[in-house]
Order: sequence, then C-alpha cells, then structure tokens
Amino acid sequence: MNKPYIKLDEKYPGIVSLFMFDKGVSKHLSGMAQEIMRRPATLSVGERELIAAFVSKLNNCEFCYRSHSSCAFETLTRPEWVLEVINEEYVEGLPMKLRALLCIAADVQDLDRGHLPISVEGAKEQGATDQEIHDTVLVASFFCMCNRYVDGLGTTFKPGEEVEGGKSLAKYGYLMTIRRFFGEILPKLFRG
Amino acid sequence: MNKPYIKLDEKYPGIVSLFMFDKGVSKHLSGMAQEIMRRPATLSVGERELIAAFVSKLNNCEFCYRSHSSCAFETLTRPEWVLEVINEEYVEGLPMKLRALLCIAADVQDLDRGHLPISVEGAKEQGATDQEIHDTVLVASFFCMCNRYVDGLGTTFKPGEEVEGGKSLAKYGYLMTIRRFFGEILPKLFRG
Repeated sequence: MNKPYIKLDEKYPGIVSLFMFDKGVSKHLSGMAQEIMRRPATLSVGERELIAAFVSKLNNCEFCYRSHSSCAFETLTRPEWVLEVINEEYVEGLPMKLRALLCIAADVQDLDRGHLPISVEGAKEQGATDQEIHDTVLVASFFCMCNRYVDGLGTTFKPGEEVEGGKSLAKYGYLMTIRRFFGEILPKLFRG
Repeated sequence: MNKPYIKLDEKYPGIVSLFMFDKGVSKHLSGMAQEIMRRPATLSVGERELIAAFVSKLNNCEFCYRSHSSCAFETLTRPEWVLEVINEEYVEGLPMKLRALLCIAADVQDLDRGHLPISVEGAKEQGATDQEIHDTVLVASFFCMCNRYVDGLGTTFKPGEEVEGGKSLAKYGYLMTIRRFFGEILPKLFRG
C-alpha cells in the first residue's frame, strides 16, 4: 500500500485521517457537508449522493467515489441508478431531469465553460429549478475540493472501509459519522 | 455583460451573489474560508492568498484570481511576488520553498497524481513542513471548489468590484467582509 505524503494516522481511512490531522478544519468541512448533502431540498439525499459519487468517479478519487456510491445505494429509492451512473451499466428509468443535472455536474467537474450554458438550458427544459441547478453545481464543486484534499495528500484506506464509511454516512449523516470516528474527542470539538 | 445561469441579485459581485442566494451555505463557506485563510499558521496570510490567486488563475476564474491577487498584494510583505506568480513577470527573490509549494498547488489543481509525489518531495527538500504541505493542498482544493461555484453558475461582476473585494478581504477578513455585503441581515445569520 502507498504511504500518505505527510504523516497521518493510517488507522483512519481517507478523509478521516485528514480530520484527525487538522481538527480545526474538520469541524467546518463536516458542517458544510451536512448542510449541502443533508438539508431538506427537492433533490433527495440519494440524488445528491449520486452526484457526489459521479463527480468523484470523474475525478478518479477511489475513496470518495466508492464511499458515496455506497451511500447513494443505501439512500436512493432506486439503488440500481448507481449501477448506471457509476458502473455504466444500462438501467431503465433514470429520470431525464437527473440525467440533465449529471451533465451539469460533469461540466463543472472539468470546468467546461463552453458547454455549461447548454447543459443548464437542458436541465431547465427537463423542469429543473434554479435551486436544483444551484445545488448540483455546489455538490459538484464541493466534491472537486474533497477529492483533491483526499488524493492531494495521498491518504490511504483498507478495502471495505470506504463502503462501511458510506453506509455510516447514510445512517448517521456527516456530523455523527465523523463524531464516531473521533470518539471522545468530538463532543467537545463540535459543541457550539 | 453575460447573465448568470440562475436568477441572482446582480447588485452583488461574484461569490457574494451566491451568498445572497443561499444564506445557509454562505455561513459555512465563509467560516471555512476564515479558518483556512486567516488562522495563525507558518504560511503567512499573504502566501496563502497568493496560492489562492495562483490556483484561481490556473482555473481561469477571473473574479477569484483578480480579487485574491488584490488581497495578496495588500497582505504580502513582498507584493511584487504577485507580479511573478500571476502576471508571469520575472521578479527576484521568490523563495524556493514558496515556489515548491506553488508546484504542489498546480499539481492539485489539475489532479496530477503522477507528479504530486515529486512536488511534495521537492517542497520537503526546501524545508516545507507537513503542516505547510497540508495547508497548501487544502488552499488549492478549497479554491478549486470556489472557482467552480462562482463560474459554474455564471456569476458576474463590474470591473473594479473584484479588486475592492480583495482589499476588503485583506482589511476585514472573510467573515467581516461578507457581513458588510449582507448588511443588517448578517449579524443574526452569523450569531453562534
């Protein structure tokens, strides 16, 4: 297994090892994740997790795309959509609006300013609201950060930990999942 | 002037129009920016702003690279470094460690996993600490998000507003600058 580029506690997988390295940042990052990925919105939690997994796959960030695929699988009313979007297996019934939003996410991932207006127009034609377009761009942008933070420091994980992490995100959300990793340190850190 | 892709209040420039659109997210985003860009660290505020401007330039995000160049110019002890890093004018004296950290930032920006270990090794040879390497990767990753959020929704600004915004960031920091834009709404929003 490769080593991280800086001294991290490899007992913790992927981004969690960075949360342990820099607790000041972890509080903001997990709070922001909880807001973006779990607040009430017309895009369901599963749809947002699917966009996160898709962008992370495009960025080739293994830890992130596997954990958020796992979380999307747990939270989507139609888990088979993960197979189509992430594994490129043809599955019937992926809604046109969600397809159009995934096109926006792909344009944001590779910063294709020429194509973005076309993708946004396409999503509007499929009934996407301004808030849904905003939320898609935000989720895509947020994971372009997370993928770079995770792989830019060469974090590692043992096979299976990322899938378990995704299930934990589905069950407990971002704040609680991080709290569980931190154990007794966290209640104080996340107070207020 | 182009129009944003969603209905934004164009009275506010760039990312500030998004803060007005989505106040729930703005609180987390500006809190995270303040933590990353202003907390006490061995990389100075000016060096971090220079990395932010450099990454935003590589991402071709005009609002961000101009405002953070302006902020770096105000906060660096050697403002002429902005000319070298952003305008590619040769200036004497840019320290080797800072050059090496900018190489890491560039690798993070284009997710060059093949070259990153070499850049990290180079920075360590120039005396960069693990925390400085971490902070560089984090700043670069954070602005890869901000650049996409700003341009992914087609935000606009009037020439000069971005420079003024950068000066305001230098003088007041991220929380206070955002507060000033929000006016009377903000004290309540940022409480607690």
